[in-house]
Amino acid sequence: MTYDCSFLSDLALDGTTSFEESARENHAADWVAQEAGLGVTPDAVVWPESTADVSTVLEAAHERDVPVTPYAAGTSMEGNAVPAFKGISMDMTKMNDVLEVRPDDFQIDVEPGVMGNVVDETAAEHGMFFPPMPSSANLSTIGGMIVNDAAGQKTVKYGEVADWVLELEIVLADGTVIETGSKAVKTSSGYNLKDLIIGSEGTLGVVTRATLELEGLPEQIKGGRAVFNSMDDAAEAVFDAVRSGVDVAKLELIDPLAGEMANAYFDTGLPDAAMIFVEFHANHGIEEEIEFFRTILNAHDVEQFEIASDDRMDELWRARDELAFAIQQYDPDLEPRHPGDVTVPISKYPDLIRYAKARAAEHDILLPCFGHAGDGNVHYAALIDPDDEAMLEAADDLYDNIVEQAIEWGGTATGEHGIGMGKRTFLEREHGAGTVQVMRGIKAALDPKDILNPGKIFPETETEGVRVDLSK
Amino acid sequence: MTYDCSFLSDLALDGTTSFEESARENHAADWVAQEAGLGVTPDAVVWPESTADVSTVLEAAHERDVPVTPYAAGTSMEGNAVPAFKGISMDMTKMNDVLEVRPDDFQIDVEPGVMGNVVDETAAEHGMFFPPMPSSANLSTIGGMIVNDAAGQKTVKYGEVADWVLELEIVLADGTVIETGSKAVKTSSGYNLKDLIIGSEGTLGVVTRATLELEGLPEQIKGGRAVFNSMDDAAEAVFDAVRSGVDVAKLELIDPLAGEMANAYFDTGLPDAAMIFVEFHANHGIEEEIEFFRTILNAHDVEQFEIASDDRMDELWRARDELAFAIQQYDPDLEPRHPGDVTVPISKYPDLIRYAKARAAEHDILLPCFGHAGDGNVHYAALIDPDDEAMLEAADDLYDNIVEQAIEWGGTATGEHGIGMGKRTFLEREHGAGTVQVMRGIKAALDPKDILNPGKIFPETETEGVRVDLSK
Repeated sequence: MTYDCSFLSDLALDGTTSFEESARENHAADWVAQEAGLGVTPDAVVWPESTADVSTVLEAAHERDVPVTPYAAGTSMEGNAVPAFKGISMDMTKMNDVLEVRPDDFQIDVEPGVMGNVVDETAAEHGMFFPPMPSSANLSTIGGMIVNDAAGQKTVKYGEVADWVLELEIVLADGTVIETGSKAVKTSSGYNLKDLIIGSEGTLGVVTRATLELEGLPEQIKGGRAVFNSMDDAAEAVFDAVRSGVDVAKLELIDPLAGEMANAYFDTGLPDAAMIFVEFHANHGIEEEIEFFRTILNAHDVEQFEIASDDRMDELWRARDELAFAIQQYDPDLEPRHPGDVTVPISKYPDLIRYAKARAAEHDILLPCFGHAGDGNVHYAALIDPDDEAMLEAADDLYDNIVEQAIEWGGTATGEHGIGMGKRTFLEREHGAGTVQVMRGIKAALDPKDILNPGKIFPETETEGVRVDLSK
Repeated sequence: MTYDCSFLSDLALDGTTSFEESARENHAADWVAQEAGLGVTPDAVVWPESTADVSTVLEAAHERDVPVTPYAAGTSMEGNAVPAFKGISMDMTKMNDVLEVRPDDFQIDVEPGVMGNVVDETAAEHGMFFPPMPSSANLSTIGGMIVNDAAGQKTVKYGEVADWVLELEIVLADGTVIETGSKAVKTSSGYNLKDLIIGSEGTLGVVTRATLELEGLPEQIKGGRAVFNSMDDAAEAVFDAVRSGVDVAKLELIDPLAGEMANAYFDTGLPDAAMIFVEFHANHGIEEEIEFFRTILNAHDVEQFEIASDDRMDELWRARDELAFAIQQYDPDLEPRHPGDVTVPISKYPDLIRYAKARAAEHDILLPCFGHAGDGNVHYAALIDPDDEAMLEAADDLYDNIVEQAIEWGGTATGEHGIGMGKRTFLEREHGAGTVQVMRGIKAALDPKDILNPGKIFPETETEGVRVDLSK
């Protein structure tokens, strides 16, 4: 069904509204839904320019039972920003002001549409940075990072986005504006609504302002690369490094296949071997930490470990940051499907890598593996021929196998990309029916009409295609 | 009113139940309620010994609309564990097993009644520790720390309790057992119920098992003490230290009055001056960090800064840890009232200290100030003659003034002790009516009959003395 959204034209907004097909189609999908042709075209797009706009639109939509799906850069990976039930796509990218920096308190106030790199650039003017920044900093918005509880390469040392958000302004489904959290660095005052909103994928409220915590830039930064004879050695070295407590700021694994794809895309001259990319942050004594790390690598038959020049390291990190594109471009006949992001306790990380590679080999599917190894987090994508039904089915199986195995080992279906539409079937398996029931209860309490990003997070019901009845 | 709790005798429990007056009176109050004579005697006390026990009791109480207030060591500071509406006090201290340690994953599974020091002692066997441990480690339980989102001296470096809890088993009001969180170190799978339960003071569910994250013990630990000519210098030095990014693991301020009280109690020979106690943790290069810190102190006219021997430092930290007792014992004619725990952004910390001291002087009240300065957190207590009505009123005013001023400066009414009964009047002022309404909605969704620790967190209503109607 479609919704009559003509009421948007009658609202007094600072921002704009469009019913044009091209604008609507531009808001049909996120990265993965785009690839897979799974977009849903909204009935209207609105670009709010203030908290008042967001409130006005939500109040009016709420009155009329019209779904509203927040949208920003569209870089989510699980269909999180797809307007699954049509209605309004609320594009937050015009609310993109840096509002205030308070360097004495290591704090920055931003609107949700600010791009990640703008936050880091603004912070850098004060000798600071935003530690949990995802690799997609220059493609993604802070708002998107918050509502998906994103994480990044430096999460192994500094934690995830949730750990660096102090306060949020939220507009609720009915247009009510509230604040959660505190500008104090710790609080135990009342229920922690801030962390409930973080990672809720726009289903409980729309973030309209965030106070982020920043960190001083370290005085010493050095990056390097280790090359191994086998994936097994590399994965075991990751586990041992984390277990040793070595102070690394990034600890990324890249398998030979991902390395080959990066070479094809960038011509960066990576060896055809399992690699670890690493970065160290310190105010002093960085050499001692690097040597400590070297002893761990040596215990795992490292073939080569070298600290790179800053220029060479920039090139390597760029290759790592843009691996998703390299995978996309690798073979014109193959498309990446099911980009994965599972996380397990670090002791299970080598097993998970072995399992994923073995299953991919059985299915005869190319499965480049990479990601934030230090967090026990692996990213992967199955490369498939979209016209080959058997291959599609095998990729589906492979995907299910890996997620289920991660959950089985005490891990999570998604470390940093959320549930969206793509992983709803795993929610109950991971958390249990009772826990999901509580989540539904909270959704019903905050958004009883289910107008905020309906069709996400919660498992499909028998009435799939109809908006969820949360009372069930 | 009282509740007929005789049904408890008919339940098949591993644990025990008592209706004896002495047992009931032992569960009437927490530390502060005890001091102030504000306890409420429950109708029965039950000591569950398993998750099944907790579930059985809650299911039966839920059916009968009988309030259940979880109780552990009774060391809370805001009446959090007082059974305000009588009914059942559920004493968790018999569920005190360490269930499993997984050193490879830096994880420990514990029951809620395990004492803090047992966690640290068990972790130490594996070269690890629980970083956010409160000063009351050997007096308080892990369960109490979790549901109040406690914090400690090392929070300035490592974060609060919430940051180190990975997974919780919870029994809901109706007896349903659920799990929240993940044993993976990061997850963005579904709503973050774990952090909603943390700090909810037993009003949303009863914690029956926790997976905590541990940290490797640092190879180098050094502590020291700085002495200042004025409180102003000391407070400004704290602010400057935090702003500089110096890597301190503890950063505690002690005012001359608190120092005097510690001397009277312990005979530790502290000077009658403003002091900072500090501790550094590092794997190497600790001397460089200490020298960096010294340059900051010098810029604030430090009178003396010395690194102490381990023995002397143990003595100093013990004096710091037990300041609450020293304050209690200081003058037989005076009682501590309104122990405070407000937190502000660090740039406001010197102002807050100045404000508190000035207001105390105006009111002619002894107000020792101390606490986790590096977090912008100040602890204090007003010493009053309980028979002096004017003094009691002045202490009430002083208390209100300080909390309101902290909120005014972007801070929080409570950094680590929760709202309980004591700070309910500040909840709306801090968060706004809309936010509190959402909190009420969540309480109603999880505990519609308001049987779990009723009378806490939410502001008093016109129907004070009657259990809260959450639909309002």
